[in-house]
Order: sequence, then structure tokens, then C-alpha cells
Amino acid sequence: MNLNYDSSVTFPDGFLANGISAGIKETGSLDVGLIMSERPAVAAAVFTKNKFVAAPVLLCAKNLTRSKHKIRAIIANSGCANALTGKIGVKFAERVTAAVAKELHVQKENVLAASTGVIGKRLPMENIVERIPILVENLNVEGDSAFSRSILTTDKFPKRVAVEFSLSRGKKFRIGATAKGAGMIHPNMATMLCFATTDVRIDKKKLQQALNIAVSKSFNTITVDGDTSTNDSVFLLANGASGIEIKSASEQKKFEESLTGVLVELAMMIVRDGEGATRFVKLNIESAATYEEAVKVGRAVGISPLVKTAIFGGDPNWGRVLSAVGNSDARFDPTKVELRIGNICVFRKNEPQSVDLARMKDLFSKKEIEMTIKLNSGSDSARVYTCDLSYDYVKINGEYTT
Amino acid sequence: MNLNYDSSVTFPDGFLANGISAGIKETGSLDVGLIMSERPAVAAAVFTKNKFVAAPVLLCAKNLTRSKHKIRAIIANSGCANALTGKIGVKFAERVTAAVAKELHVQKENVLAASTGVIGKRLPMENIVERIPILVENLNVEGDSAFSRSILTTDKFPKRVAVEFSLSRGKKFRIGATAKGAGMIHPNMATMLCFATTDVRIDKKKLQQALNIAVSKSFNTITVDGDTSTNDSVFLLANGASGIEIKSASEQKKFEESLTGVLVELAMMIVRDGEGATRFVKLNIESAATYEEAVKVGRAVGISPLVKTAIFGGDPNWGRVLSAVGNSDARFDPTKVELRIGNICVFRKNEPQSVDLARMKDLFSKKEIEMTIKLNSGSDSARVYTCDLSYDYVKINGEYTT
Repeated sequence: MNLNYDSSVTFPDGFLANGISAGIKETGSLDVGLIMSERPAVAAAVFTKNKFVAAPVLLCAKNLTRSKHKIRAIIANSGCANALTGKIGVKFAERVTAAVAKELHVQKENVLAASTGVIGKRLPMENIVERIPILVENLNVEGDSAFSRSILTTDKFPKRVAVEFSLSRGKKFRIGATAKGAGMIHPNMATMLCFATTDVRIDKKKLQQALNIAVSKSFNTITVDGDTSTNDSVFLLANGASGIEIKSASEQKKFEESLTGVLVELAMMIVRDGEGATRFVKLNIESAATYEEAVKVGRAVGISPLVKTAIFGGDPNWGRVLSAVGNSDARFDPTKVELRIGNICVFRKNEPQSVDLARMKDLFSKKEIEMTIKLNSGSDSARVYTCDLSYDYVKINGEYTT
Repeated sequence: MNLNYDSSVTFPDGFLANGISAGIKETGSLDVGLIMSERPAVAAAVFTKNKFVAAPVLLCAKNLTRSKHKIRAIIANSGCANALTGKIGVKFAERVTAAVAKELHVQKENVLAASTGVIGKRLPMENIVERIPILVENLNVEGDSAFSRSILTTDKFPKRVAVEFSLSRGKKFRIGATAKGAGMIHPNMATMLCFATTDVRIDKKKLQQALNIAVSKSFNTITVDGDTSTNDSVFLLANGASGIEIKSASEQKKFEESLTGVLVELAMMIVRDGEGATRFVKLNIESAATYEEAVKVGRAVGISPLVKTAIFGGDPNWGRVLSAVGNSDARFDPTKVELRIGNICVFRKNEPQSVDLARMKDLFSKKEIEMTIKLNSGSDSARVYTCDLSYDYVKINGEYTT
């Protein structure tokens, strides 16, 4: 794939974006962003599985139903999650989307919303509504950069990917996406905010199906701290501006693969930018009974604080990795498990292997560590990405002000 | 309960103990301990649910079956877990227990073993075996103090509790116990090493039943880091030396309650001594559909790194607590959930409550924090204990040498 890291949601035809500061963040950084499709787009979305669902997520579910998945714009803000804010939280989310709809001359159900930041704090709705005319007025094709920055919280860098694909008959279509992550990153759903756009023409069922598959293979295979937020949302808008329609099963497959590629890239960026992360860890789980079992094993390792602190400390403590494997509720025969750190086999056939500790320490001192857990219990495999657990994770989260 | 913190496994009649240094720990600290019953004792045990089971745990399962739960001694070592050590690990555990049996003139299946420390390292079996005659020779009724210290790893203090109880007819019996914890503390099983003794007379079925109940209400309600080790074991020996027999259902209930009280005390000590812990957190989960659902909710909060780092930082970030509640797979209606921090209600009837932030910050600055999560979904309740996640947790675990 020919990935373009300098563009995102406005790379596909017919999308504009913008990001401004509405004073939600005390620093004065960008904190409100808008994506707009010049024509009605078909929308798909995946939302948090947390039982406490933030106001904007509740509103999105309602607007998607009312609009029959025809969406023109998504407004996002950082600095305040508008979660656990009661009835007024929902009312405020509605006011914000209604103000956007009015300014764009569309129906209010054609606008979606997303928020991220501190939970339980009231949304500074009036500050946002006041700035919406300026936000809309300056929508432009280069505005995706400001949009990408406006959604960040503890992220250290914006996450953007865009790509152009051909179908077999040579016609080209585009996908662009941006995401924010950092903390509360753990699969079981969307796991953060992600906004994706495409200019293919596709029906809403096929679009949702492609998104479900892409999310399961990207955001649902990463873990930073095992927490799942009240606000996590992945949006995908398809406006058909390229004139290319996804019809056949092979076209659908191509689209799914392209979308998956883009979202995997963003997922890896989120892990690299995990709160306090100093090392990136790629876990290959091989020969599992099913893909789901493989992911379970990968998550059990990826979430273990003992594994993550050992990796932070550069300590080749492979016993903790296998102990974490043994804690997963996946089905496998522990006597058949093989563990490789990089290309060094440390455990197989129920026996520890004699390894060169100096070589192991060297592997653990790298910025990127790859481990392979071969279950020898089937023929499916998965890849799970995680990062280490550092002093800075504790610092960032101990000091994040309510 | 009249708890005695200056005694443990030798408080009940007919038990002796000792602890020595066999050079497993480089510091020269005590690292091998022995508990001996002067007469054959009935044994009950609960072991790790991790799929990778350490050699001593495998051996215990075998010896309990072979001896029909008649046990005379338990040998324990710290500094090396003898886990993921293959066939030689099992052989070495057998050699150690056989050496103890020989010295005590009992059958080798009458001896149990427990190990804790680094995983994957070969047990220095010969050093241990060589010191067994001295270990046995100096067994004494005050030796429980040395035993308690010999099982420690990253623990900052030994954990000991003993207590005397009366049955209705006035006769007295005793229970004593000691435990080690610190890291890898998470329910789903025994969660650490615990050795308990009693001088009641009781059959093995009743003894195991009492232990299962006591463990479910003590060690299975605490979490430090969500990891479950390969070695976790809880042992209970009953030697009948008091002459008091547990026969009726009410006597059994009294015994269960007494044992539960002792183990809850040890469980709380383990949390207070959690790796790097600076704050102790008591979570009351009320009005749950079942006890199990209540524990699930408590664990989800107790394990959340975002909650734990906020508590370390003294940050009254109650939104993270409810977000963690929402992540649990317990069944409840989120709109009915009430959250109290100390005696301050922060969320109820799906609405955040206006709270005095200064009072909240004050509560979060205390060494002990109590939170009550009322689910309003039934009539069962549970208590779960956890601690904060500090820089020192990262330091201890990043530097724990393999």
C-alpha cells in the first residue's frame, strides 16, 4: 500500500475539514473540529461497549437511525468527554449538532458528534456554539490537519493516513482517516476516536460490514492500558464522489482490505503514542484454534502490567510472558506452547531453552520488540500490538486534572 | 475477633516451624522455610488457575492424592519459582520433598512444597537439600517468625495472624496463618502463597469446603495488578491437637467464619503491601444481583490502571471509576448506579451530583479511600480491596532481575 501520512479525511474527493480553539482546553490549543461532506454521505460507525455511554454516542445512535445513515458532517471536541453528564449532557450535544446543521443548511439528524477528554465535566456548549459559524466558514480541503490536532488529548502527535486504490478495472478511489488515542486504549470495541472518509459509492450495509471487519483487525488488536472509555467511536463516511461503486464480492473484499490497511496503520500509531510508551511490542500469536483465541492470548500478554513493566525496564523476563499466556481464558494445551523473543526460542515442548542472556538483553533494549507465541493448537493466527508501562504512564494519569 | 499479629502457623497446638537461608537470594536473607505437624494433619489446598502450573504445585496435587490428604510438613522457598522449568523442575521439587520426608521419618507423599520468585530459573536444589537437616533440627514453636520471613519476595513486611475461638460448648481451638503477596495479586484463585494451620479435628471434605469459602471471600476479593502467578497456593493443615471436632453444621459455620476472618486479614495486609502501593482502597459493591456480579464490578474498578493512577495522584477523578464499572461484564442497569466516595454521593439516577471539590480532594489525599458502588439491581453485596499504581510499582517491576 502506498500510504500518505500528510493527508487524511480530506484526501478523498468531496470532503472538507477544519479545526479551531473554542477555549475548552486551558492551553488554548485546538479543541473543536468539523468534517463535512459536500454531498450526503452514507455513514457506518462502531461505538464503545462500555455500559456508561457518553452523550454524543447516544446522540449519534439516534441520528443515524433518524437520517437512515445519511450524514453530512461530524463535529468533534477534545478537553471534555461529555460523559456521565446526565440529561443536560445529551441536550448540550443536541444543541451543538443543531447549530452545525443550521449553519450547513442541513437537517440536524444529518450531523454526528464525538467528544473526548475528562469524564463527568459539563460541556462548555455555548463556547462551542458561538464558534460554529467561523468553524464552518473556514472549512477547506487542507483543514484536515487542524481537524487532526483538534481531537487530541494526551496524544503527542496527530495520527493521519490516506491512500489511493485501484479496483481491477483501473478506476481509482481514496480512503483517508485520522485518529486519537493515548490512554484508555483496549479492544472490545472501537477503543478511541477515529474518523475515516472515502469517495467510493457503497450501500450502508456493505459499508458497515467493511468497517466491522477493519475494526476487528485493527483497533481491536491493540491495548495500552486495558481500559475502554465511555466515548470510543469509529466513523466512516462514504460520499460516492469518485463515481466508483462497490458492487461485486471481489470489489467489496478489495475495499475491506484497503480500509483495514489504513486502520491498522492508525492503530499502530496509537500504540506507539500510548501514554508514556517508550517501547512498541508486536505480538504474533500463531497456530491458534481460532482467530478469536489467538487475540485472547495476545491481549492477555498485552495487558499484563508485569510484562509491560519488564519491557520498560529492558528486563528479558520471558517467564512473565508465559505466565500471562497461561492467564488467558483461551483454549490451548500449555505443554505445546512455544515462545520466541525476536528469533530466539526461549520455551518449547514444555521445557525452557538455553539462551544467550546477552543476546536477549540486547533484544529487550530495542525500541521495538517482537514476540511470537505459537500455540500449536490449530491453524489461525493474529497480531496484537502493545507498549510498555513506564513512569510516565503513572505521571500522565496521576496528574491528569479533573 | 481477637486477632494476634505476633504469631501465625505455630499458634495452634502441635505445629513447629523454621526458616533459614540457603543462599537462593543473593542478599543472604531467609529463603527456605518449613512447617511441621507433630501428628499427621488433614490437608486442604487451593491452587493457581494459571494454565502454566509450577513444579511444586504439580507435585502437591500428586502428593495430596497419594497421601489421601494426610500431610506432615510443607517446605517453601523464595527467590526461585521453579516454574516453567520443565521435567527437571518437577524432579528437583521431588528431591527436596523427599529429603524433608527422610529427615522427618515420614513418607515422601506426606510432604508438600511451595516456591515463589523468578519464573523460568532452575531451582538450586542441592543448596536446599544440603540445608534440610539444619532446617529440621531447629524446628520450634517460635519458628513461625522465621518461616514468615523466609517466604517473602518483594514484600516489605511479613504477614501473620493468629486467633483463638470457642465453639458453643466453650471449648477452644486455634487458627494461625501467614502469607506472602506483593505482585501478581489478582483473584481467580489463591493469588499468592498462604499457609494456615488449625488444631481442630475435621474431615478432609469439610476442611476443603471451609477453605474454598474462606478463599473466595478473602484472597479472591483483592487485586494489585491483575496478574495471576504460576505458583499461587493456599494450604490449610488441621491436626486435631485441640481435641475439638467439627461435627454439626453450626460448628462448621463457626469454623468457616473464623477461617474467613483470618484470611481476610491477611488479604488486606497483602493489598497494603502491594508493590509500590501508597494508598489502600476499599470498594463496597452493594445491591448487586448476585455476590459474583458484585465481585466482578469491584474487580473491574480495582484492576483499572486509570483509576489506580488517579488515586496515586490524589486526583478525585470519579468518572474513571464509573467508566471502569461500565467496562465490567456484570449485569446491571447503568442508569440505576450510585457512586459514593467516602460519604459524598457523586453520581446517582444517571446524573452527576454537585460536590464540594475541596472535600473530594481531601478524601483522595488520605492513605485509605473507601468507595461505594450501589448497583440497585438486587440484594447481594461484596467488598473488594485494591491499592494505587505508583512510580514504585513500575520501578520494582522494571528492575526485578531475571
